[in-house]
Amino acid sequence: MSEIDSVPACGARGSRFLRACRRETVDATPIWLMRQAGRYMPEYRRLRERHALLDLIKTPELACEVTLQPMNAFALDAAIIFADILPPLEGMGLDLAFAPGEGPVIGNPVRTAADIVRLRTPPPEESLWFTLEAIRRARAQLDPRGLPLIGFSGAPFTLAAYAVEGGGSRNHERVKALMMEEPDLWRQLMTKLSEVVGAYLLAQAQAGAQALQLFDSWAGQLAPADYRDFVAPYTRRALAIAREAGVPVIHFATNTSGMVEEIRDAGGDVISVDWRIELDAARRRLGDGVALQGNLDPVALCVPWERLRPRAQHTLDQMRDSVGYVFNVGHGVLPQTPVENVQRLVEFVHEYSATIHGS
Amino acid sequence: MSEIDSVPACGARGSRFLRACRRETVDATPIWLMRQAGRYMPEYRRLRERHALLDLIKTPELACEVTLQPMNAFALDAAIIFADILPPLEGMGLDLAFAPGEGPVIGNPVRTAADIVRLRTPPPEESLWFTLEAIRRARAQLDPRGLPLIGFSGAPFTLAAYAVEGGGSRNHERVKALMMEEPDLWRQLMTKLSEVVGAYLLAQAQAGAQALQLFDSWAGQLAPADYRDFVAPYTRRALAIAREAGVPVIHFATNTSGMVEEIRDAGGDVISVDWRIELDAARRRLGDGVALQGNLDPVALCVPWERLRPRAQHTLDQMRDSVGYVFNVGHGVLPQTPVENVQRLVEFVHEYSATIHGS
Repeated sequence: MSEIDSVPACGARGSRFLRACRRETVDATPIWLMRQAGRYMPEYRRLRERHALLDLIKTPELACEVTLQPMNAFALDAAIIFADILPPLEGMGLDLAFAPGEGPVIGNPVRTAADIVRLRTPPPEESLWFTLEAIRRARAQLDPRGLPLIGFSGAPFTLAAYAVEGGGSRNHERVKALMMEEPDLWRQLMTKLSEVVGAYLLAQAQAGAQALQLFDSWAGQLAPADYRDFVAPYTRRALAIAREAGVPVIHFATNTSGMVEEIRDAGGDVISVDWRIELDAARRRLGDGVALQGNLDPVALCVPWERLRPRAQHTLDQMRDSVGYVFNVGHGVLPQTPVENVQRLVEFVHEYSATIHGS
Repeated sequence: MSEIDSVPACGARGSRFLRACRRETVDATPIWLMRQAGRYMPEYRRLRERHALLDLIKTPELACEVTLQPMNAFALDAAIIFADILPPLEGMGLDLAFAPGEGPVIGNPVRTAADIVRLRTPPPEESLWFTLEAIRRARAQLDPRGLPLIGFSGAPFTLAAYAVEGGGSRNHERVKALMMEEPDLWRQLMTKLSEVVGAYLLAQAQAGAQALQLFDSWAGQLAPADYRDFVAPYTRRALAIAREAGVPVIHFATNTSGMVEEIRDAGGDVISVDWRIELDAARRRLGDGVALQGNLDPVALCVPWERLRPRAQHTLDQMRDSVGYVFNVGHGVLPQTPVENVQRLVEFVHEYSATIHGS
């Protein structure tokens, strides 16, 4: 069933995003921004002064509040539930913490066959209930405004990378060595992860998310052949499970300009690319069978508007003749981004693209 | 003048590398490895116990000794002078240190117009004499063995990134903001850097380097349009100066799979790619007008030989019909690499490729 049918008729803004995901014509280009609820917003910083990141994520009323902050401040075309890519690992039995200045740390990383056997695959209603509840709450608030809500998860490979490395990593030597040296163990690990990710995405759609984004933040560390052999089958499996919900899926894999075809072939209605590839080159290489999302360099969102504007225009001009395009940054909004830039960018994308698409 | 003519006739090994750079037929695929002299070698670690990195680089007899270590241990087809990409910044007036575990740190980073004006552009014979002297010494030792020597420099953008950020950086916000916000200052900075880099490369060739590699480690942080507008003209300028020496130039820019065409268009006889793009895709996109170098994932060099061997074979098979190919890693050899793997890889590349190229 198409979720778009259940969105109240409240004008173009609400349905623009879902129409673009489905490669249908739009009155103007939809825009949302990865990490649109984040440190660049004073209202977010005020909440973070009182609550740790995981507290915000695990308290549905707070996660819902944060989700809505950018929707109240800007004319964005979609909300994304406030969550993180890593909590699915906690339900599997890994200890997750966010060390100040260090990013995520896994206290008991996966290193042995026994570690992999021990990983649990609990139903998301049990281990990730807080995000599902936040989705229900946010959806109730967004529906009257006709605004769609995006759910998301880390992709199996990115979760494997954190689980095995125990946190961020420069070269991802441990996770790649496990993949290269122990293909059987690797397939056990990735099978569990793809089931957890697939079930979590499906549950989010069932709780009310009208689109889903898969974040494969570390896929760009891999050679294309390794991605095809050791990652794509599990991404495909996770998306096959999620697909039962019938909502569009956005597949975002950072730093994969050399293998956008492989990313597309692993699944997704929308392929989200970073700024390291030009949108028109991505369109040429990917064909018309998928929608595109991206790809403004987040640093460009930090420079004065008169410098930012031509960059946003260049992005829109590249997609001038393209049906199925969602404006976004190529990676998350940076903390030092001026709020005014986001405000003006959202207005500009709508106004300028309307002159392309419009009447 | 072609330097290859001055190499004593001592069999195929010596000239294979330079022939491949020039897209001439070879008896077997040449191989050298980025960071082939490094921590994975016990003889290197012993030297480093007694000498800091910059001491090794700045003492010509030691730099020459380190350069030769892997040539004595393995049947590599080319030596690369032991140096670093950053010392050109010291001659320009920046304070460079290598903090343990932190990588390079610039004590007085470039932040203002006055900082850029203050940057000096001394002749390399004055500020980088130690590497030029190390090249003369290494060349004297390599010549009798018919082995070619590669000189190198950081590329203007990568030097700018370190100079402005003050060290490594996750998002390169400062250097990109300078580029986006202050194009006039940017062009002043990049003009100075391209002159320093060009003169340094030329001086290395004049001191005896028979090929030159430009390392643009951070170009992959840029959007293709920014690379074309703000970086390529300066890379081109540096290479135009170096080109007077008449030796082949290898252009290596990490993480640029979305814009290999732009890298090629900025110059170089050989384009060195990392493992994020398949070699045959790179060949298709770049055409036959350049040689290729790369691109084994350095993590693959750390796994048991029976897992490494098919990966090396896959790489060679992709270049089976390609004239102009130099086997290398896609980025530097990692410290934990087993010495035995390097030994076996070098032998395998020669033996297996000889069955392709040979008789």
